[in-house]
Amino acid sequence: MSDLIQQVNSPADLKKMTVGELNEYCGCLRKYIGETVRNTGGHLASSLGAVELSVALHYVFNCPTDKILWDVGHQAYAHKIITGRRDTFSSLRKNGGISGFPKISESECDAFTMGHSSTSLSIGLGFVRARELLKQSYNVVSIIGDGAFTGGMAFEALNDIGASQARMTIVLNDNKMSISENVGAMSEYLSKLRLSKRYSRLKRTVQKGVLGIPLFGEHIYKALGKTKDGIKALLQNNKMFEQMGIKYYGPIDGHNIGNLIEIFKQTKKETCPVLIHIVTEKGKGDSAAQCDPSKFHGIQPVGSASEPAFSDVLSRFLCEEGKKNSSIVAITAAMADGTGLSSFSELCPDRYFDVGIAEQHAVTLAAGLAAGGLKPYFAVYSTFLQRGFDQILHDVCINNLGVTFLIDRAGAVGSDGITHQGIYDLSYLSIIPNMTILAPKDGNEFYKMLIWSQSFNAPLSIRYPKSYGLNSECAEIEYGKWETVVSHKSSVYILCVGGRALKAAKALGHANIINARFVKPLDTEFLNSVNVDGNVIITVEDNAVCGGFGQAVNSYLTTCGMKAKIACIGYPDEFLDDFSIEHSLESAGITESGILSAIKKLK
Amino acid sequence: MSDLIQQVNSPADLKKMTVGELNEYCGCLRKYIGETVRNTGGHLASSLGAVELSVALHYVFNCPTDKILWDVGHQAYAHKIITGRRDTFSSLRKNGGISGFPKISESECDAFTMGHSSTSLSIGLGFVRARELLKQSYNVVSIIGDGAFTGGMAFEALNDIGASQARMTIVLNDNKMSISENVGAMSEYLSKLRLSKRYSRLKRTVQKGVLGIPLFGEHIYKALGKTKDGIKALLQNNKMFEQMGIKYYGPIDGHNIGNLIEIFKQTKKETCPVLIHIVTEKGKGDSAAQCDPSKFHGIQPVGSASEPAFSDVLSRFLCEEGKKNSSIVAITAAMADGTGLSSFSELCPDRYFDVGIAEQHAVTLAAGLAAGGLKPYFAVYSTFLQRGFDQILHDVCINNLGVTFLIDRAGAVGSDGITHQGIYDLSYLSIIPNMTILAPKDGNEFYKMLIWSQSFNAPLSIRYPKSYGLNSECAEIEYGKWETVVSHKSSVYILCVGGRALKAAKALGHANIINARFVKPLDTEFLNSVNVDGNVIITVEDNAVCGGFGQAVNSYLTTCGMKAKIACIGYPDEFLDDFSIEHSLESAGITESGILSAIKKLK
Repeated sequence: MSDLIQQVNSPADLKKMTVGELNEYCGCLRKYIGETVRNTGGHLASSLGAVELSVALHYVFNCPTDKILWDVGHQAYAHKIITGRRDTFSSLRKNGGISGFPKISESECDAFTMGHSSTSLSIGLGFVRARELLKQSYNVVSIIGDGAFTGGMAFEALNDIGASQARMTIVLNDNKMSISENVGAMSEYLSKLRLSKRYSRLKRTVQKGVLGIPLFGEHIYKALGKTKDGIKALLQNNKMFEQMGIKYYGPIDGHNIGNLIEIFKQTKKETCPVLIHIVTEKGKGDSAAQCDPSKFHGIQPVGSASEPAFSDVLSRFLCEEGKKNSSIVAITAAMADGTGLSSFSELCPDRYFDVGIAEQHAVTLAAGLAAGGLKPYFAVYSTFLQRGFDQILHDVCINNLGVTFLIDRAGAVGSDGITHQGIYDLSYLSIIPNMTILAPKDGNEFYKMLIWSQSFNAPLSIRYPKSYGLNSECAEIEYGKWETVVSHKSSVYILCVGGRALKAAKALGHANIINARFVKPLDTEFLNSVNVDGNVIITVEDNAVCGGFGQAVNSYLTTCGMKAKIACIGYPDEFLDDFSIEHSLESAGITESGILSAIKKLK
Repeated sequence: MSDLIQQVNSPADLKKMTVGELNEYCGCLRKYIGETVRNTGGHLASSLGAVELSVALHYVFNCPTDKILWDVGHQAYAHKIITGRRDTFSSLRKNGGISGFPKISESECDAFTMGHSSTSLSIGLGFVRARELLKQSYNVVSIIGDGAFTGGMAFEALNDIGASQARMTIVLNDNKMSISENVGAMSEYLSKLRLSKRYSRLKRTVQKGVLGIPLFGEHIYKALGKTKDGIKALLQNNKMFEQMGIKYYGPIDGHNIGNLIEIFKQTKKETCPVLIHIVTEKGKGDSAAQCDPSKFHGIQPVGSASEPAFSDVLSRFLCEEGKKNSSIVAITAAMADGTGLSSFSELCPDRYFDVGIAEQHAVTLAAGLAAGGLKPYFAVYSTFLQRGFDQILHDVCINNLGVTFLIDRAGAVGSDGITHQGIYDLSYLSIIPNMTILAPKDGNEFYKMLIWSQSFNAPLSIRYPKSYGLNSECAEIEYGKWETVVSHKSSVYILCVGGRALKAAKALGHANIINARFVKPLDTEFLNSVNVDGNVIITVEDNAVCGGFGQAVNSYLTTCGMKAKIACIGYPDEFLDDFSIEHSLESAGITESGILSAIKKLK
C-alpha cells in the first residue's frame, strides 16, 4: 500500500491536499481497489470509474453531516476507503468483513443501506424534506448512474424533486453503460449530449481555461458565466431536465478532479435542485477492466472454482430451441451476461429485448408479448424481480398469460449480501393465483423444464441459484408431479426444493428423498400417500420459511387432517446478513446435520 | 335511452355517421353514462371526459383487430357501450354484470384485463413487437392519462418505445388531474404546453380552418403542414418527447370529434411512435361532475347507505396529533380524498406530500423521511401498495425504519372487482422481516393504534377495509398481544383479523372470540395457552389463505407441536372475480355459517 493511501484516514485528510496530490491519491486508490478486488471479487469497473468523483465529493462535502447517497452502491469502494474502511477493505464481501454496498451499520458515512437500483433520488428527497422541516442545514447528494436512471422510480422522484424545487444535488454518473451496454431512448439522449459540439467546446474551454489555473478559483466560473460561451451557459442547455424544473450542469469530465471540485462548490450554493451530468469511463485506469467493462462489472476472486452455471443451460436452450421455435422471445433488464442471454441476443437479435434496468416494464412487456401471440422468457435475478411483483400479479397472472420467468441467483447469494438475497421469491410468487413454480435440481433437469415450458401456456416461474454441481438423471416433467430421488424403507420423507436442498438430504443416505420440483402446485397425490401416522416429513428449501414451500405443505396437510409429523427447514424471519452461501445454508440448517436434527426432534 | 344510442350496436355503425351525427351521439352517450352511473356507482368524471376520444378512436380504428389499450381503464365506459355492451351497461360493477375496467372475458374489444395505472404503454409495446415478429398488420393505441403518466413504469416503457422506434400511437389524455389534482414536474410541464400561445393559436386555426370544412379533408393537414403556422409545426414543438424519439402532436382539443378523427387518421400512417397530447375536461357535459371532478371521480350508487369510514379516523388522527407532533408527515400517491389526507393537507401543507401515482417513490421517500428524523405515514390502497413491494422490503425494512403504512381498501373491495381486491397484503407483507402488521376491528381501535404508532420506531402496517360498523370498547394496544372479545366456556377459539371477521364470529355467540389485532408478530403466548388437546382453533381473515394469517398460526403451532385442531378461513388460491363485498365474504366462508361448518368439520 502506498504512503499516500496510508495518509488518508478520513475525508478531513483529503481537504488538506492540493489538486496534484488528490490526483496522485486517485491513482493510488485505483491501484489499491484493483489489487484488492482481484483477490476478493466484487464490482471492479464501476468503482474504478467513480474514484475522482468520490474524492471530489469528500473534498467538497462533509460526511457524515452531509448525506451522500450512492445509487445501488456498487461504485462506492473509493468512498468506503476514504471514510475509514481502508484497512478492512481486504475483507470486502466476506463474513465479518465489509459489504460491497453502502451499509449504515458499517459507517455513519453510509447514510442508507442500499443495493437495488434507482432509489437514491427518493431517499435523497426524503432527507431534504426532513432537513427543511427540522430546520437543519446539511447537503444531500444523490449519485445515480445512467443505467439506474432508466428505472422508473428515478423518474417518479425527479418529477417530485422538480416540482417541489428541493435543494439537492443529483450527480448523474454517465459511464455509457449500466451493467451491459445501456439501452433506451434516455441513453441515446445522453449520448447525443455527450457527442454534442458543446461537449467538445467544453473540453477545450475547460482544458485551456480552468486546468492551468490554481484550484480554488471560483471567480473563473463567475467570469465564464457572464459570457455566452461560459461554462454555465454551455451546461444549462439540457432542455429535458430544465423542463422538469431541475437545473442542469454538464456534461463534465468525471475524471478531472479540479473540474469536479469546482462544480460541486458552485452547485452547493444553489437553492434549487441541480443535476450534474458527469461522464466517466467504467474501469478507468485499469487496462483490462477498461477494455471489457461488462466482464469486469462484477468479478470473481482469483482462483475461485467455477461450477457449471444454470445461465449456460438457459443460453443453450434459447439458442437451440429459438432456432426451431420462432415464437420464443427473450427479455432482460440490463443483465444479458449474468442471466445467459448474450448468445441468443446475437443469434436472434430481433427476438431479444434488453429494456434496461426496468423490471416493471419488462414484466408487463412480457405480458403484452404473450397476449400478442409470442412465447416470452424473462430472465432476471430473484432479488430484482421483487420490483415487478405487482406487474406479475396484475398483468401476467390475472390475464393468465404464458410468460416464463427464469429466476436466477435464487436462494442465498453469498458475497453480495443482505440486499441481494434471493430467498423471498418462493414466498412472494406462491401467493399469486395462476402461478406455477418450478425449481430444478441441476442443469439437466432445468433443460427438461425449459423444453416442457414451451407448451405450457400459463404463468410459470423457474427459480435456481447461480450454479449446480453434477448433473444426474431425471424423470420426465409432468405437471404437478414430484420425483423420488432416493427410495428407502424408511418412515422419513425429505421434500427438497432445488439442488442445494437435495445435496444436503443426500448426505443422510437413509431416508426417502424427494425432488419437489413443482413448488406450486404441490404434488398432493404424493403428499396424501405419505400423510400416515408415524411418518416424518421434512421440507427443505433455500428460501425463507415464512410463506415458503414448507408452509404450503404444512397448510395442505393440515387441511387434509395431519397424520404425519412435519418440520420445515429454511431461512428464519430475519434478513440474511451473510456473505457466504455455505455459511447461509449452515445457519438455516440446510445441511446433513440440520436435517438430521430436525428428524430427531420429531421422532 | 335515445334512438341514436340504440342505433349503434358496434363500432361499424359509427363509421357510417357524419361528424354532426357523431357529435349528437356523444351527447347521448354522455347522458346515458351519467344516468346509469348515478344508479350503479362508478368512475363518472373520467369516462365523461373520454367520450369524444372513444368515439373518434372507434371511428378510425377497427376493434378487435386493432388493439386499444385503456390505461387503468376506468375511463372506458363509452368504449364499452360502443363495443356491444350498451344493454348490459346498467349492470355495471354488479355480480353477473360488466366490469368497471377493461376485461378480456367480457369482450374481444378489451384487448387486456387492466385496472392498475401506467401499464398500457408496456402492454402496447408487447403487442407491437408480437405484430412485427408474426408479420401481422394491426394498429396499437395506448391511451394514458396525465395522472398515470407520472407512474415510473410509463417512463420505462417510453424509454423503450422511443429507442426501438416502435410503430404505435400513444394518446396522452390530459385532463389536468389524475384522481385528485395532478402533481409533479411532468404535470407542470404539460400545463405549460397547454397554456402556451401555440395552444391558443391552435384553437383559432382549428376553429377557423378545419371545423367549417367537410370531415374527410386530409388535405387540410397536408396544406397546413407546409406553413410555419401549420398544425404539424405547432404540434411538433414538444422537445421532451421528441428528444426521446417519440413524435409529438398536440395539444389537441379532446372534445372536438372532427379534430380527433383527423389526427388519428394522420398519425395512423406514421411508421414511428407517435404521442398525441389531447386536452379534455373531467366530467365534461355533466355540470355537477364538471364542477367537482375529484368528488365525481368515483361515485357511490344513489341511496347507498354509508358506514363510517376508516379514512375519517385517519383524518382526525393526523389533524389532532399533527398539531402536537411536528415530526408527523403524511404521504399519498394521488389519493388524498380516498385515504383521508385532505384535511391534514390543508392544516399542515408543508408536512403533506402528494407524489402523484408513484407508489414506488412514495415508499422510498417515506424511508428517506424516516432516516432524516421524521415520522412518515403513507396512506395507500392495499392493491396499489403492491407496486411498492420491493421498496418496502428493501428500503424500509432492511433499514428498519419507522415508516407507517396505512393500508385502506384491504380485503374484498366489492364493485371495483378482480383488479382491485385488497386480499394479498397480509401475505406479501408477512414475508418481510422487520415488518409489524396490525388490523383494527373498528374506528375506535384504529385510533388507538394510530396513537400507539407514534412511539413505534420500526416498519408498521395497519390494514383495514373502507368502512366499519359500530365502534366498541377495546383494550389498550400492547405490542404482540391480542384482545379477547368474547370469553366463553368453550373449547373453540376463533382468531379474527379485522372487523369483518369479528362480525362473522360474533354471530355465533358461543365460542371464544379473539381480536387478532397483531397479525405479525403473532401472540405466541396466547397461542401456546390454547394449543391443548381437544381445542379447536379457527382463523378468519379477509385475505387470501395462501401466505396469510392462518398459515402463520398453523406454522407456528406445528413448530411447537400441534395439539389443538386448526382450520383457516380466507380466500382460496384464485383471483376474486367478484363485485360484491358481501358475496365475496360469503364465498370464502367469512360468515356465521362458514365458521360453524369449519368447526363442525374439526370436531
